[in-house]
Amino acid sequence: MIRLISFEGGDGSGKSTQLRLLERYLAGRGRGCLGTREPGGTALGEMIRQVLLTEDVRGEAKGDPSPLTPYAICPPTELFLYLADRAQHVHEVIRPALASGTLVLCDRFTDSTLAYQGYGRGVDLGMLRRVNEVASGGITPDITFLLDCPVELGLSRAEERSSIIHSQSSAREDRASRMEDRFEREEVAFHERVRKGFLELARTEPGRIHVLDASRAVRDLHEEIRKIIDEKLANGE
Amino acid sequence: MIRLISFEGGDGSGKSTQLRLLERYLAGRGRGCLGTREPGGTALGEMIRQVLLTEDVRGEAKGDPSPLTPYAICPPTELFLYLADRAQHVHEVIRPALASGTLVLCDRFTDSTLAYQGYGRGVDLGMLRRVNEVASGGITPDITFLLDCPVELGLSRAEERSSIIHSQSSAREDRASRMEDRFEREEVAFHERVRKGFLELARTEPGRIHVLDASRAVRDLHEEIRKIIDEKLANGE
Repeated sequence: MIRLISFEGGDGSGKSTQLRLLERYLAGRGRGCLGTREPGGTALGEMIRQVLLTEDVRGEAKGDPSPLTPYAICPPTELFLYLADRAQHVHEVIRPALASGTLVLCDRFTDSTLAYQGYGRGVDLGMLRRVNEVASGGITPDITFLLDCPVELGLSRAEERSSIIHSQSSAREDRASRMEDRFEREEVAFHERVRKGFLELARTEPGRIHVLDASRAVRDLHEEIRKIIDEKLANGE
Repeated sequence: MIRLISFEGGDGSGKSTQLRLLERYLAGRGRGCLGTREPGGTALGEMIRQVLLTEDVRGEAKGDPSPLTPYAICPPTELFLYLADRAQHVHEVIRPALASGTLVLCDRFTDSTLAYQGYGRGVDLGMLRRVNEVASGGITPDITFLLDCPVELGLSRAEERSSIIHSQSSAREDRASRMEDRFEREEVAFHERVRKGFLELARTEPGRIHVLDASRAVRDLHEEIRKIIDEKLANGE
């Protein structure tokens, strides 16, 4: 029985688009599902996003007479903020949805922690698996779609999206795009490590993680995802 | 060489008061020192405190059309928020101070995580030691003063302080006091587990953790702390 599907991959790999297309497809087949994302997805998650976004901005705590210095978030702080976001997201959104029989589609989940903080930032993978388990309450995706594409392609797509969003859109989308900027600002070598990390994870769990070529057209990618899902559902999974 | 001194104990045990008294004493002896506290102590920490305080308050993310539900922070979320606060506090405040030869006095540090989240909430201690190490970057206190007193006494002192602060003081102190309320709201059995946890930690590290009877007068307690410190400093520690 498929209960949780995660979409993973680098920035600009098209995860959100594919998630929305699959959500629409499943809804059209009468399968109740919920699309959600990390970080965010809860009120507390929104506040954590805000904490992550305030980086480089002078922090002036209200009512505080001593001016606080601006901050640069260090890697362990980043890790624990993402984990706090996930713990609350699982507690408030994912677990209740699964309990009610809703199929959950999640844009980023535990594999992103391993790829970004582990392979990308060099945090110990064994430790990350332990804390992932604590944060997720032991919930693991039944299927993970890894949208893989060359780093340069992903980054240029993400950059294009950011510039469109910055110029046109709402405050909310602007916040979401700056969130991605957090990693976009990283050097290409960082993103190469993240990509390699995702692919290594896929090699160790080929039954769960489906590697898809995300450099293809949106529609082709969606069809491949549909085929995989249809097959699993036909098999009663 | 003493570099980092932590003050630990339950709510209302008098940690902040004793920290300030020791800080003044050491400053008077020409020893440069810095008093700081967890959670808080950095701009990011202040934001994290805010996230912890927003509990039970309806979260309405700005610019978000869908009203987000109020949240109750679950134990792993709480753990990771405190760890994020510590990681940033070490990175921004403690490590630079130590590097410049300043003696750091910290109100709560790694032992609080073990006592509150481990013994209090039941999170696995081995896992907590690993994440504490990540958050603290391997920095451990040279001396820890565990201010121990019966739970009822500590809670009644904390309650008294809260009511005074709520009725008289600034918004900032009000926030700080509500922070303590987070644990004050817990049942007595929780605080008994925390107290027992602190005492067990002291038994395993008698060289570092000094258990002090915090039910005594402020001045008596301060004198005992001074004696311990004077002895260590006289021994060239």
